[in-house]
Amino acid sequence: MMPAARGFVFDAYGTLFDVHSVIAACRDVAPDAPALSETWRAKQLEYTWLRALMGQYEDFWAITNAALRFALRRHGIAIDAAQHDRLLQAYEHLETYPEVPDALQRLNPLPLSILSNGSPGMLQAVVEHNQLQDVFEHVISVDPLQTFKPNPVVYDLAPQRLGIPKSELLFVSSNAFDVIGSKAFGFQVAWLNRSDAPLDELGQQPDMVIHRLDELPQALGL
Amino acid sequence: MMPAARGFVFDAYGTLFDVHSVIAACRDVAPDAPALSETWRAKQLEYTWLRALMGQYEDFWAITNAALRFALRRHGIAIDAAQHDRLLQAYEHLETYPEVPDALQRLNPLPLSILSNGSPGMLQAVVEHNQLQDVFEHVISVDPLQTFKPNPVVYDLAPQRLGIPKSELLFVSSNAFDVIGSKAFGFQVAWLNRSDAPLDELGQQPDMVIHRLDELPQALGL
Repeated sequence: MMPAARGFVFDAYGTLFDVHSVIAACRDVAPDAPALSETWRAKQLEYTWLRALMGQYEDFWAITNAALRFALRRHGIAIDAAQHDRLLQAYEHLETYPEVPDALQRLNPLPLSILSNGSPGMLQAVVEHNQLQDVFEHVISVDPLQTFKPNPVVYDLAPQRLGIPKSELLFVSSNAFDVIGSKAFGFQVAWLNRSDAPLDELGQQPDMVIHRLDELPQALGL
Repeated sequence: MMPAARGFVFDAYGTLFDVHSVIAACRDVAPDAPALSETWRAKQLEYTWLRALMGQYEDFWAITNAALRFALRRHGIAIDAAQHDRLLQAYEHLETYPEVPDALQRLNPLPLSILSNGSPGMLQAVVEHNQLQDVFEHVISVDPLQTFKPNPVVYDLAPQRLGIPKSELLFVSSNAFDVIGSKAFGFQVAWLNRSDAPLDELGQQPDMVIHRLDELPQALGL
């Protein structure tokens, strides 16, 4: 039996903010916009893992840009610099999933924070774009540590900053690798399994599985 | 201008040995055998990166098994234990790409070695299956270091074991992440770009790009 959580820590991209809301911007340049968006996102994650493992950090904005360059090349799409910038800047204007703002309000009796691979500037922009700056007590970027999830040192930023032990924080992510990394670190973990995917086979299980964020306040009686 | 290489170091899986030669075994259980094989391979690599980054090592045989379990679930394929074992064991009987044995013979004036994520048992099995045990001076597994490529400590095993500086070793891999990791480490690097893919955008370029291994002795005048 888990102790009651004393705070919530959210992953940002894919969990609160819909990374595929860039598809609209992709439509301007790509015949198959969802495929471009898929490759962009997959490479963005892959590049965080590889750079962290090589010890060759660059921030998530630069990685997002590099992943976009690769995705455009793989899909054979040539665009000019202005179009490229417009696609990249779509990342600062991602929308929340529809149920997110209300669900956060219902969880708000406890402190809410974000712990994300995003660079501080990207996170500030997307939080402000969605007018959520008053909702989160802490918006924590991995950037000062120059590494990425699922390196356990990254997850340790949250208990340090919040002053709450990791076993009393509920971490919420839609990304399976992040669920596994955060559970291995020692958080309580809810997997927001938006796409009803099978869990990766990496020896960790979340404490709870939900499919939309509004199931969380419901499950916790908030 | 590179100094002449004094030895060759090869990646194993995907470079010498065709990971998709498991497709024949997959056909017994999967309606879309190439798709199952693709997911299996992609997850196998992803799990090495994630486990290395989490500091939760398990060997490549266990990872290959876990990736197979995930791939079967994702593709909705239920099989019995004997079928599962047969699929997994296909990894010990991968075939070389057709041009590999002759190309290795032509490179053989210089010492040839393997540096691989594979566990020692897997590597021994696949080398012996292809009767290459006399071709390689060293078959080096990452296993003693309990981490995976592209962690630079892994690449350092080769110069240590061969007694040749990294700048005088030519590392050959078909895997883009491995090309990038080995180049960041400091090897001379040939990318065996079998699928004519774009290079990942991670700030490194190989010294040479070939499409089949027999282009290498030709390019070096061997």
